[in-house]
Amino acid sequence: MPSSRNSRIPVGILGATGAVGQRIVSLLADHPWFELIELAASSRSAGKPYGDAASWRLSSPLPEAIAKIVVRGLDSESGEFRSKILFSGLDADIAMEAEERLATAGHAVVSNAKSHRLDMDVPLVIPEVNHEHLALISVQRKRRGSNGFIVTNPNCSSTGLTMAFAPIEEAFGIESAVVATLQAVSGAGYPGLPSLDILDNAIPFIRGEEEKIEREPKKMLGRLASGGEAIDEADFSIAAMVHRVAVVDGHLVSVLVHTKQHATPDAIRRAILEWSRERALSSPTAPRDPLVYLEAPDRPQTRLDRDLGRGMTCSIGRLRTAPGGGIRFACLAHNTVRGAAGAAVLNAETLVEQGFLS
Amino acid sequence: MPSSRNSRIPVGILGATGAVGQRIVSLLADHPWFELIELAASSRSAGKPYGDAASWRLSSPLPEAIAKIVVRGLDSESGEFRSKILFSGLDADIAMEAEERLATAGHAVVSNAKSHRLDMDVPLVIPEVNHEHLALISVQRKRRGSNGFIVTNPNCSSTGLTMAFAPIEEAFGIESAVVATLQAVSGAGYPGLPSLDILDNAIPFIRGEEEKIEREPKKMLGRLASGGEAIDEADFSIAAMVHRVAVVDGHLVSVLVHTKQHATPDAIRRAILEWSRERALSSPTAPRDPLVYLEAPDRPQTRLDRDLGRGMTCSIGRLRTAPGGGIRFACLAHNTVRGAAGAAVLNAETLVEQGFLS
Amino acid sequence: MPSSRNSRIPVGILGATGAVGQRIVSLLADHPWFELIELAASSRSAGKPYGDAASWRLSSPLPEAIAKIVVRGLDSESGEFRSKILFSGLDADIAMEAEERLATAGHAVVSNAKSHRLDMDVPLVIPEVNHEHLALISVQRKRRGSNGFIVTNPNCSSTGLTMAFAPIEEAFGIESAVVATLQAVSGAGYPGLPSLDILDNAIPFIRGEEEKIEREPKKMLGRLASGGEAIDEADFSIAAMVHRVAVVDGHLVSVLVHTKQHATPDAIRRAILEWSRERALSSPTAPRDPLVYLEAPDRPQTRLDRDLGRGMTCSIGRLRTAPGGGIRFACLAHNTVRGAAGAAVLNAETLVEQGFLS
Amino acid sequence: MPSSRNSRIPVGILGATGAVGQRIVSLLADHPWFELIELAASSRSAGKPYGDAASWRLSSPLPEAIAKIVVRGLDSESGEFRSKILFSGLDADIAMEAEERLATAGHAVVSNAKSHRLDMDVPLVIPEVNHEHLALISVQRKRRGSNGFIVTNPNCSSTGLTMAFAPIEEAFGIESAVVATLQAVSGAGYPGLPSLDILDNAIPFIRGEEEKIEREPKKMLGRLASGGEAIDEADFSIAAMVHRVAVVDGHLVSVLVHTKQHATPDAIRRAILEWSRERALSSPTAPRDPLVYLEAPDRPQTRLDRDLGRGMTCSIGRLRTAPGGGIRFACLAHNTVRGAAGAAVLNAETLVEQGFLS
Repeated sequence: MPSSRNSRIPVGILGATGAVGQRIVSLLADHPWFELIELAASSRSAGKPYGDAASWRLSSPLPEAIAKIVVRGLDSESGEFRSKILFSGLDADIAMEAEERLATAGHAVVSNAKSHRLDMDVPLVIPEVNHEHLALISVQRKRRGSNGFIVTNPNCSSTGLTMAFAPIEEAFGIESAVVATLQAVSGAGYPGLPSLDILDNAIPFIRGEEEKIEREPKKMLGRLASGGEAIDEADFSIAAMVHRVAVVDGHLVSVLVHTKQHATPDAIRRAILEWSRERALSSPTAPRDPLVYLEAPDRPQTRLDRDLGRGMTCSIGRLRTAPGGGIRFACLAHNTVRGAAGAAVLNAETLVEQGFLS
Repeated sequence: MPSSRNSRIPVGILGATGAVGQRIVSLLADHPWFELIELAASSRSAGKPYGDAASWRLSSPLPEAIAKIVVRGLDSESGEFRSKILFSGLDADIAMEAEERLATAGHAVVSNAKSHRLDMDVPLVIPEVNHEHLALISVQRKRRGSNGFIVTNPNCSSTGLTMAFAPIEEAFGIESAVVATLQAVSGAGYPGLPSLDILDNAIPFIRGEEEKIEREPKKMLGRLASGGEAIDEADFSIAAMVHRVAVVDGHLVSVLVHTKQHATPDAIRRAILEWSRERALSSPTAPRDPLVYLEAPDRPQTRLDRDLGRGMTCSIGRLRTAPGGGIRFACLAHNTVRGAAGAAVLNAETLVEQGFLS
Repeated sequence: MPSSRNSRIPVGILGATGAVGQRIVSLLADHPWFELIELAASSRSAGKPYGDAASWRLSSPLPEAIAKIVVRGLDSESGEFRSKILFSGLDADIAMEAEERLATAGHAVVSNAKSHRLDMDVPLVIPEVNHEHLALISVQRKRRGSNGFIVTNPNCSSTGLTMAFAPIEEAFGIESAVVATLQAVSGAGYPGLPSLDILDNAIPFIRGEEEKIEREPKKMLGRLASGGEAIDEADFSIAAMVHRVAVVDGHLVSVLVHTKQHATPDAIRRAILEWSRERALSSPTAPRDPLVYLEAPDRPQTRLDRDLGRGMTCSIGRLRTAPGGGIRFACLAHNTVRGAAGAAVLNAETLVEQGFLS
Repeated sequence: MPSSRNSRIPVGILGATGAVGQRIVSLLADHPWFELIELAASSRSAGKPYGDAASWRLSSPLPEAIAKIVVRGLDSESGEFRSKILFSGLDADIAMEAEERLATAGHAVVSNAKSHRLDMDVPLVIPEVNHEHLALISVQRKRRGSNGFIVTNPNCSSTGLTMAFAPIEEAFGIESAVVATLQAVSGAGYPGLPSLDILDNAIPFIRGEEEKIEREPKKMLGRLASGGEAIDEADFSIAAMVHRVAVVDGHLVSVLVHTKQHATPDAIRRAILEWSRERALSSPTAPRDPLVYLEAPDRPQTRLDRDLGRGMTCSIGRLRTAPGGGIRFACLAHNTVRGAAGAAVLNAETLVEQGFLS
């Protein structure tokens, strides 16, 4: 990692004006390892100072130095990117081509988009869970004949869920899981969900979301196989029932899990705490505790607990048995921090620490 | 049923000033069969005109004639009740004794309180589902040596769930179910939940609620046994994960159900519609359709669908298979109408129709 | 007015798929005087059955017969309209030309759009307040050489305010007013305001709104002049401070008014009640009480009082003096009923009653 | 001020378990000048560790060291307080007697309660506005014959308003003001406002609030008179119209002000910025900018701007003229930080800096 502020790694953001892009900007504003030098967005924003192009929606103010950066376009006509790392908060339709092109051009593309998450040789990573999947990068490099690559983080709902699953899968093996989510409106981006759709309302549907939740955790909890060149997905089933609710940030997930080996709530609680101690990372964006267990009977709660560990800690509570077997619990993660922007920045930090950028 | 307004049955409300009591008042305001003559509440309210005693919270205005009724106390010192039917919106701690006492005194107590729901000889009834359980009334009458009795309606979350379960249990048999609820704040009464607890928040806990949801539907879907003197509860398991969300009225429930016989989403959809046609009742508060199926992929939604059938229709949607087996769907019921006040009034109408009040 | 259902007046809706259009559909669904036969919208919707073209957002279900009507385009290429009355829920940019064209073609255009509200010869009408302004129709007819005309209703915030002002202006004369609004998100249409903009938030700005509030009431409270061919606007000043808040429907307005003649809160209260009795209309959509005064110290409240008179009654409360002089009060009107769709339907009914359609 | 952590001043909190008490705890958790050693609450909490006694409602976690402090009672039977400064978040009815008693006993009572705000010799202080009013302390000391005293901060709505008024009063003189507030539910404490009262609702009433807003700013903007022994209140009138809205934190206030000398929006804007530069303090809780002016046409907004300056900066926007004369603007302050807990801590810091504690 960089030894001084002067040797910080130049980084850029693709889709910098969107909701995820703004969060990444705010996380990189004063980052000890990364220096934000490039902001790219659609042609509508290109050429404008970022402060004018972005309709800044965060309660933390936009740093003045960044407000002055002139936004560039995404395409090659706008010239080559000078950044080593390009964070991507692009929409899926644009991300598909642009990320591939920029990886081929030699950049480390650290993406929050869904487009390449399930590609065979693209790591889908939560560093505390499966940083060893980064080995797939060498497969990409071979395929493209370039030093560039794509690394992705999971969907905002898959994130907390996978972090909660990790210690259970490791200690007891997961047989199957039923998952109900209560998701924040910020997960739909901006402008995203109309206010008339969510005030005094709850919606039992988010397009494409259940499919992601049912697939992504299995890839992340899978094992490197074929000499490190592929992932064997975990073999349990996940049935998701998603809901949008009237909260700003924070995805709350209730889970009923059946384990392969017998597990008590208390044993799972201990596995969670031990896993959190062992897997905690030390890079700038990593929280001291990736997982915490909240003892109060009515926690985690979205507004009260989403900011734990500056939004990077996933909180778990209400571990209890279930009629018909299995163990129930609730878990919570900040969807735009741990589930999107913070996830990407932590992935980038892990890439630096593990030498993938040298 | 009464042949004219002059022969309407005199009825009263216990706990008339509370949230459920107010809803019952509004449903009885212009009822063709029932004449509201008595309003009882705690000693704090007794002696005041109802308009002063109740802090009226409904958007439909309080009828002036009812506003003038002087509230009486609950105890016998306040004199005997003159009503044939006493609706009870009492808190559980008070209901236990008061309802028993008033049934013994000869009244038909139609209660929304949980206190007697699981008593062996007390019918727990949704008329379209299990009005035949009213046969238990004769057991009560024998036990007390009085013509009075207690009939109860289920908890607000159990209601929609049981209505959705009924056609599935009947057609395919239920093996097990996992249930996640998103419940309105009105379910907690008034003042109930502090606003600081729910604005921009979701809470994965409601005291005592999961236990009710896991038990009550099994009693209602049970069969009359022992020559009509007891209920054999249905034998499937229900695992509930409850949540409070920021909606005023309406409990949305997502369900994963495993059936004994193979069932497709389409077969369940047909069973639901057929059941609804066959079981629909014709008394004043009964909706034309006890169940409706909404075809749109994102329905039912709490605010948009809770008022169907003036709050008495339960809506179902999103029937689909699940990874790992089973069928998923969402259902919605208005918690203070179909799940509380309307439930009680419909129970009373059914008692009249079936001759239990003559 | 029509003597039987068979002689109902054929009517159509321009902009039928939008938020206001949907409300008009629901108000006309079973109207005794009007028969809804035409639904027009943009070319994107034209040719589709209304049930498919409109994303129905109301909690009252869309009537099946109307769902089957095939939506037509707005332009003349889609053929001539057969409706005598055309309700317009069009966006302002489209309304300007389309409404003028259709009035010239002989239709009675009853519009909720702002485009022609301030035209010299276009009546801006709340029937209980200033139906005599309909005399301007003859000026329009002369100008166009056609029997058609445009009649408009005011902006949703101006509506309640003007109804509250009317008795005060009449009894005491208004010198000046300061007005603060708390407006519902439905006022911004659909999709309208992003949910991220309003959850846990309040916004002290709505584009163009203060200008409307500061002008429209003065036109409506003006007097017919020049032998009924023009309006002399009322001569007081209104200073508006608008806010968007997290409510679905209902615009709450707090007002400080200085009167020309001395007025006490109680005298104003009496003037309001007397005005309401005298001005109440009897057509189908008219409420029994155009204005009500709520005595409780904390009313009107948006959710509790917006539905009074099926959304057509404006409620007033908290009349009190102010330090520095003047009288303060709060008033509330349902913005999409009394402030938009219901306003248009009531205007049409008034046109029928006053013989402008024969 | 303390020269090292070892010489920190011992402080305690009265009413430590309430909403304001919790905020004070969180602000003192790591304070460089103050060491939190005593937590007092009602007899119901006394004897319990603070972590058990307080139902912690903040999203920042309760520090473990403080969670272990055993809560003491308020009365003298619980022994003498050892703290030099006692912060008071007491309810008004208890504060009246308790604060007087503890001031007489020699403590510096820094109170958020309303009880003594308008006492003739009690300073009501926002340090950037009127720290010179602290001279009244000597009058108190003389009266009580004790070194102790009471200093108060204003009501949460008066705070932002007074900060916005200060530069205007200083530069142009205020003639009169009309004020409309949109206030957060946290202003009502916990449990405070029932959720059923505020979801999808707005309420034009808060008991006692308008009176405070109409009086407190005038005391704070008054001048020391009678040789520093009394305050001559400012002589303008304030007419307040208050509203409760569905936001968690942050009071938004819209203002129409008439000035004695002619003022343009731009001149006021400059006066605000200059005042903010000149009056900014440097103690730990003081923000760099007491006031900021936001240029965007739709700011300040409650959720986006309440946390400026860690909740201690008051933001102003939308300066514009008004029909009928006067200048309009919107201002926003975090009600539980700048308007309550942070206000008290900043008052205490100012007392230290100005030598009132030596």
